[in-house]
Amino acid sequence: NTTRSNSANKSTSGKYLKELLPATNCLHPLHRKFTRLPHLAGTEQNLRYAEQIGKEWLEFGLDTVEMVPYDVLLSYPNKSQPNYISIVDQFGSEVFNTSLAEPVPEGYEDVSNIVPPYSAFSAKGQPEGDLVYVNYGRTEDFSQLEKDMGINVTGKIVIIRYGKIFRGNKVTNAMLAGAKGVILFSDPADYCAVGSYPHGWNLPGGGAQRGNIFNMNGAGDPLTPGYPAKEYTYRSNLENVVGLPNIPVHPIGYNDAIHLLKKVRMNIHTNNQVTRIHNVIGRIRGALEPDRYVILGGHRDAWVFGGIDPMSGAAVVHEIVRTFGLLLRKGWRPRRTIIFASWDAEEFGLQGSTEWAEDNAKMLQERAVGYVNADSAIEGMYTLRVDCTPSLHTLVYDLTKQVTSPEEGEEGVSLYESWHKRDNWTNDRDAPRISKLGSGSDFEAYFIRLGIAAARARYTKNKETERYSSYPVYHSVYETFELVDKFYDPTFKRLRAVAQVRAGLIFQLAESQLLPLDVNQYADSLGKYAQSIVQLAQRHPQEMTKYEVSFDALFSAVGNFSVAARDFHERLQTLNREDPMPVRVMNDQLMYLERAFIDPMGLPGRPFYRHVIFAPSSHNKYAGESFPGIYDALFDIKNSADTAKAWEEVKHQISIAAFTVHAAGMTLTPPA
Amino acid sequence: NTTRSNSANKSTSGKYLKELLPATNCLHPLHRKFTRLPHLAGTEQNLRYAEQIGKEWLEFGLDTVEMVPYDVLLSYPNKSQPNYISIVDQFGSEVFNTSLAEPVPEGYEDVSNIVPPYSAFSAKGQPEGDLVYVNYGRTEDFSQLEKDMGINVTGKIVIIRYGKIFRGNKVTNAMLAGAKGVILFSDPADYCAVGSYPHGWNLPGGGAQRGNIFNMNGAGDPLTPGYPAKEYTYRSNLENVVGLPNIPVHPIGYNDAIHLLKKVRMNIHTNNQVTRIHNVIGRIRGALEPDRYVILGGHRDAWVFGGIDPMSGAAVVHEIVRTFGLLLRKGWRPRRTIIFASWDAEEFGLQGSTEWAEDNAKMLQERAVGYVNADSAIEGMYTLRVDCTPSLHTLVYDLTKQVTSPEEGEEGVSLYESWHKRDNWTNDRDAPRISKLGSGSDFEAYFIRLGIAAARARYTKNKETERYSSYPVYHSVYETFELVDKFYDPTFKRLRAVAQVRAGLIFQLAESQLLPLDVNQYADSLGKYAQSIVQLAQRHPQEMTKYEVSFDALFSAVGNFSVAARDFHERLQTLNREDPMPVRVMNDQLMYLERAFIDPMGLPGRPFYRHVIFAPSSHNKYAGESFPGIYDALFDIKNSADTAKAWEEVKHQISIAAFTVHAAGMTLTPPA
Repeated sequence: NTTRSNSANKSTSGKYLKELLPATNCLHPLHRKFTRLPHLAGTEQNLRYAEQIGKEWLEFGLDTVEMVPYDVLLSYPNKSQPNYISIVDQFGSEVFNTSLAEPVPEGYEDVSNIVPPYSAFSAKGQPEGDLVYVNYGRTEDFSQLEKDMGINVTGKIVIIRYGKIFRGNKVTNAMLAGAKGVILFSDPADYCAVGSYPHGWNLPGGGAQRGNIFNMNGAGDPLTPGYPAKEYTYRSNLENVVGLPNIPVHPIGYNDAIHLLKKVRMNIHTNNQVTRIHNVIGRIRGALEPDRYVILGGHRDAWVFGGIDPMSGAAVVHEIVRTFGLLLRKGWRPRRTIIFASWDAEEFGLQGSTEWAEDNAKMLQERAVGYVNADSAIEGMYTLRVDCTPSLHTLVYDLTKQVTSPEEGEEGVSLYESWHKRDNWTNDRDAPRISKLGSGSDFEAYFIRLGIAAARARYTKNKETERYSSYPVYHSVYETFELVDKFYDPTFKRLRAVAQVRAGLIFQLAESQLLPLDVNQYADSLGKYAQSIVQLAQRHPQEMTKYEVSFDALFSAVGNFSVAARDFHERLQTLNREDPMPVRVMNDQLMYLERAFIDPMGLPGRPFYRHVIFAPSSHNKYAGESFPGIYDALFDIKNSADTAKAWEEVKHQISIAAFTVHAAGMTLTPPA
Repeated sequence: NTTRSNSANKSTSGKYLKELLPATNCLHPLHRKFTRLPHLAGTEQNLRYAEQIGKEWLEFGLDTVEMVPYDVLLSYPNKSQPNYISIVDQFGSEVFNTSLAEPVPEGYEDVSNIVPPYSAFSAKGQPEGDLVYVNYGRTEDFSQLEKDMGINVTGKIVIIRYGKIFRGNKVTNAMLAGAKGVILFSDPADYCAVGSYPHGWNLPGGGAQRGNIFNMNGAGDPLTPGYPAKEYTYRSNLENVVGLPNIPVHPIGYNDAIHLLKKVRMNIHTNNQVTRIHNVIGRIRGALEPDRYVILGGHRDAWVFGGIDPMSGAAVVHEIVRTFGLLLRKGWRPRRTIIFASWDAEEFGLQGSTEWAEDNAKMLQERAVGYVNADSAIEGMYTLRVDCTPSLHTLVYDLTKQVTSPEEGEEGVSLYESWHKRDNWTNDRDAPRISKLGSGSDFEAYFIRLGIAAARARYTKNKETERYSSYPVYHSVYETFELVDKFYDPTFKRLRAVAQVRAGLIFQLAESQLLPLDVNQYADSLGKYAQSIVQLAQRHPQEMTKYEVSFDALFSAVGNFSVAARDFHERLQTLNREDPMPVRVMNDQLMYLERAFIDPMGLPGRPFYRHVIFAPSSHNKYAGESFPGIYDALFDIKNSADTAKAWEEVKHQISIAAFTVHAAGMTLTPPA
């Protein structure tokens, strides 16, 4: 059963895919099962779920399942000294205190171990001071305050609303501006509309968004950057950790926020603590190319119940394992090895996934074909959302044509058509929009550090009309099974559509004789990204002339890449598919293309962000930028004291991008 | 002719090897041809030689040959303002000046463009001051001067004799000690005996050793660290280059040295200059695995004629290309692709080889099976010397049994026997000694930065009786054709033996169905290195206890590695060699093993030295150390002001080594 012919067997593969997709019909009970209890990273309950998942994966039929522990730095509130914010009067007395917890939703009153809202990795402290409101806490918000309004926040406590950018970037900005504390709140304008939970899917006034506030920039465990946090691993002193917030930070809901106007005191007693976490890793051994890995990974740890984040995604992973198990029983075995991962401690900075990537970096670098991320499967009720590397665009389109739309009244309509109708990528092409990968979920180490082709897919909101970030009850206690069952996906058809997309990506990456990666699409995207970054630079025409800034080398590299990509696809047409060696040689070129965009030097100041084409900007971890090195250098121009030096950095980054694209193109030419 | 059966064809392979080795009989004329004129890197003549080599390689039958230029920072004396050292009297008058050039050897009187002795990358300047003699300029020499003799060299000019360590390390030590100038000289005790050139192979009193004095630590071109120095590449300002010497440095011969006793003035006008250099790259396309590369590379640029360094090696490369061409004409084509390289600007810090490695890093990382270095083929008349990675030990022994001893009176004796008799590796095993790779030649970027299995082989002196570094006329004008023809190898049989070893390594790496890499041997060596580093640490038993320094994790990792290696070789026994896919899978594991020792984080402070098992110590570029991170941390203990912190660094480095060995062992386990 472990060997099979190498020749293409399209019809058999197709048959198994047709069996696989409809089999994903148990999402409702799976989601229910894993959302009953809070399962924060590092807690007993999250270990229990890990054990249960591992046991069931083995029952489903995986070849091996292992529990992989790491000891990483997490952060918890002090159980005996709660965190809160006070308004103090002129005598220093606390005349108002913010709530210590969210009102617990109905049906969960007896549940223990609900962690109150807090900002993980906050410094401890009880700063007291005047409050300054800094909107979303973006670079431009702070500079507007300083330049336009003449308000200096040095020594002040700042209050910042959630949204637009990653909360960790808000805290960094506040620290840079000299603030001595940060209060984060959910603004009803962003997070609420009529119909708060349990009557709707919006955030009640007593709810608040938990979350970590640490800009790890891909390091994983803060004490062991670059290495897995094993028992014997050397750990840095906390004082030497770069970027750990040195001021207290705390999140509140809007019922509390409206009380805070002037002078406040923060009371923060959160502790950093090395804690054991557990990934669950399961495998299906590949029949022909056991040393080629296709990975489906998503996290299991949740701030509370994880009704959406992550269990809507973890249920999908579980269901995909179950259905792949069904195929295995029918005699199927994939060409390549499939790895399923249930990551821990994502909420504390992608720690489980990053530590495992560090632990297995050599093998992943040499063997990993693709990584599909499985965080929350739903964040809205409108249509599909896909973020992926350009070489996967074509596969995503092909696959979504084989999946049925989950929307009522769209029987017989494909997911592709339904998605296309709702979110046409007008400015790029007449097809559904696909976005760039940013960060903020577990694909980060695999894509941005290691250069493994990656994708994520989920159901989303209508971006045109719904302006909040993520979804209103995000990271609150109101993320329950009922939230999904009553509001987001009562038929569980949306989750099922997402499961089919994720399962289909894994299946095709593991099973296609030729890897389903489209290098022409990468060439096309690189051309567009180059256009768009030059346009950004051209907002400064005088400086471009003065400092002799040229994008010629970049465009020339993109041109060479495009020619190499076209020639590569032409050679693919005449490839003798019966001869295993040339097939492997070309597949290796396909597999390693994404790796070719990795610069071992890293992006400036961010050694673990090494993808020259895609990374979040330094100013917002959530958004994926193309040519992030150049983007950041251009972003910094307006804030730089030395303009000439800032433009030198732009030129430096253009040169690195040009070289990288050129070198990547070279990997597509005939290998000898 | 480009395809062939995948199955093992041992007899045919063996037949071609038996034809290849004896065919290496044209070394004498080739060596003569390329040593007539000085061909310093960046000069017209070195380009002429490159063109000639490229043309002849094509004639010999290579599939492709290309000339690959880079624009790198070199350093030349100022033609109108010669460098020299003066003795100044109390009025500041120069009462004695060192020679401006070496006496030109007979037969070369009309040759122009002989660069005078100088220290490349010296700072300009005319410092004047008292002279202090610092022996070999090692860390211990400086500390002895300071601690035992109470002599502070701050503001002094130091005079240091060549030998023991890399001259660049001497200069760094002098800079750290506060010296304002460095004079390097060849001590007759080290470099001379009776019989100076032309009457013998020793250094005349008027000869001096040229050489660069820059600790590049693997960066290649100083202005473009990490990236190839192409036309469009962004270049750092000279001021930002880390480690460029900021004091004048100059080398003299011992005739001049004996005059210098007290107060001197240095007159140094050497210029740094971006200069075009040229590598010549030739290829034989592999028939079955064109995407697997075996590289034979050596430099072409010479300080003057390069009679030994490098043309004794470059002639060998040329001869190997010629003989491989003969095989090609007989219908042979290797399984894998062979790449031949004639590097430029090695003498200025391995620049040609490093820039090409940077330019092709992605492809090399994914495809390179092995790198064989071809610098000077001879540095003595005693026996063979091999430095290589442990996995190549077995191949080296096997191969040298098939080569004949070049020594007179040893007809019918194998090179292995001859070598074994002269240099038995008594402390390790009853076999000829093989050393660790250090640095100082072009394998550096391939082995220490990229992790490609590497080897070098040359004929050497008797280390027991001959104590000078390299060979007496090293880097002087007296490195001529006649030096080799009259003294070192009058029959050219020693060069031929070296050619056969280098050719055989390339042949077997390119042709064997299973890569001839022995992972058990790596396991064995790791065990010995671990023993030896723990012994070094155990010189400090109290501190080991006080700071809880344990090597347990390292020994445990070595143990796991050894088990994985043994199991791997057992699986190799039962491998179905008729099935191409499993053969490729195991070959990939073999190929990538060396890569698994690369740490993308680099060694502390040396981002381009990334091999955790082998690198030169920070204190001497020439010598290869095992576990260099731990070695350097232990070395630093005695000089550290903060002992506790220094031991923390030892623990940190042990943890990194343990992880790396463990992870490398994992890559040898069954891949799924």
